[in-house]
Amino acid sequence: MTTFDEPATLSPAEARALFRAGTDLPTTGWANGFTQTNLIAVPDFWAYDVLLFCQRNPAPCPVLDVSDPGDPSTRLAEGADLSTDLPRYRIWENGQLTSEASDVSRWWRDDMVAFSIGCSFTFESALAAEAIPLRHLDQGRNVSMYVTNQECEPAGRLHGPLVVSMRYIPADRIDDAVRITRAMPAVHGAPVHIGAPSALGIADLAKPDFGDPVDPLPGDVPVFWACGVTPQAALMASRPPFAITHAPGHMFITDRLDSEFRVI
Amino acid sequence: MTTFDEPATLSPAEARALFRAGTDLPTTGWANGFTQTNLIAVPDFWAYDVLLFCQRNPAPCPVLDVSDPGDPSTRLAEGADLSTDLPRYRIWENGQLTSEASDVSRWWRDDMVAFSIGCSFTFESALAAEAIPLRHLDQGRNVSMYVTNQECEPAGRLHGPLVVSMRYIPADRIDDAVRITRAMPAVHGAPVHIGAPSALGIADLAKPDFGDPVDPLPGDVPVFWACGVTPQAALMASRPPFAITHAPGHMFITDRLDSEFRVI
Repeated sequence: MTTFDEPATLSPAEARALFRAGTDLPTTGWANGFTQTNLIAVPDFWAYDVLLFCQRNPAPCPVLDVSDPGDPSTRLAEGADLSTDLPRYRIWENGQLTSEASDVSRWWRDDMVAFSIGCSFTFESALAAEAIPLRHLDQGRNVSMYVTNQECEPAGRLHGPLVVSMRYIPADRIDDAVRITRAMPAVHGAPVHIGAPSALGIADLAKPDFGDPVDPLPGDVPVFWACGVTPQAALMASRPPFAITHAPGHMFITDRLDSEFRVI
Repeated sequence: MTTFDEPATLSPAEARALFRAGTDLPTTGWANGFTQTNLIAVPDFWAYDVLLFCQRNPAPCPVLDVSDPGDPSTRLAEGADLSTDLPRYRIWENGQLTSEASDVSRWWRDDMVAFSIGCSFTFESALAAEAIPLRHLDQGRNVSMYVTNQECEPAGRLHGPLVVSMRYIPADRIDDAVRITRAMPAVHGAPVHIGAPSALGIADLAKPDFGDPVDPLPGDVPVFWACGVTPQAALMASRPPFAITHAPGHMFITDRLDSEFRVI
């Protein structure tokens, strides 16, 4: 890897092979057109609570695949291994982050169940295709994410706040952004809120809880979507004994096309 | 109840009260505009397999709500009781139908988990709103349903064939029927097949496995949608020790509007 432009043209399998070999970089802009997913893996005695939490909170937690216990393969990518093919992982014990690694195969217990959760990267390509500007990409930053004052619907032992991602959208393109993302319910769907951060309990847009602050241009309005970090926040709040997740921005690259997730 | 026209104008709560009091009639045409759901209830030690089966087969098994163990209430209808508010139920033991009843509260064990699954009645109102004819309703019959030669993606102990419902659609309205139902992924979505029953292993459209045979009009083409009977067929094939379902055509009437399930 010599430049940051090349990754866009890699196939998903080529990208996964690089990560498997140790490349540790954020996946924004990699393998353009292919869907990336959030990873949540828990022991099987927590799997029902996670799956039910996702069913009850489909906007932040759209489940695209669930693995069988101990099996790190996924229906989303032929030949992939979820324990090695992401660029970076986080290990959690009792809700505390205990380490980061670029390979978690030695932590992949026989009872681990992996959830692949839809990611807003998928709808960003649809927004870009209609020339809706994505300020965070233009500014070379990660999208801004915020913990809101809204509780998700709990499920068994799992509970936690709704986390949202925010994109500044020019006021005259908000209708298009709503139309485009509403047609993609499997990857967060329409915005959950438009305009007033305080309605979500967000005091200062310049201080996101995850990701980077992003600068608005004149006429921009903050638009908020349910965010795939929500199940990770629920893990932090609910303290299962053990969990593995992707590290923020270091996603799994699937063989599925972003366009497959458009309803129309 | 004196005529068959009145039920259409009942509120969902009024309809549920009649069923709770013992009225035992199919729910087609009741409480027009409100979504009806299929019911599958199993002991909690089977709940993960059912929920995972639904996640892996979202077209036939769109989950709209899951109850907590032993609790017959549902988020889909304020004050409703899933063990009394359907007009008729079926009781299953080891995959065998053992009885039918209009009230299953005495069978509602402390560990029962109820799945409310989307129903094609929901998209029928959207088809009718655009003047697409529904031959089975015109002929006063239940929709035709068929067990196909296609296996669903299995999940744990749960496996079974895809079941489809068939509607004869005038050839020049098929494009509209696809467009309309594609926009409703939470209630089966777009057709799974158009035109050739043999491709699904269906030998004779006049002999459905569930529901009634329906007569085509000249120029009609058979169009097949994934059907909410699929999880019931999986229960029959997979033989959990105990299960409760609705009786065919005797659905649960929710407080949710059909229109809420349109993505656009």
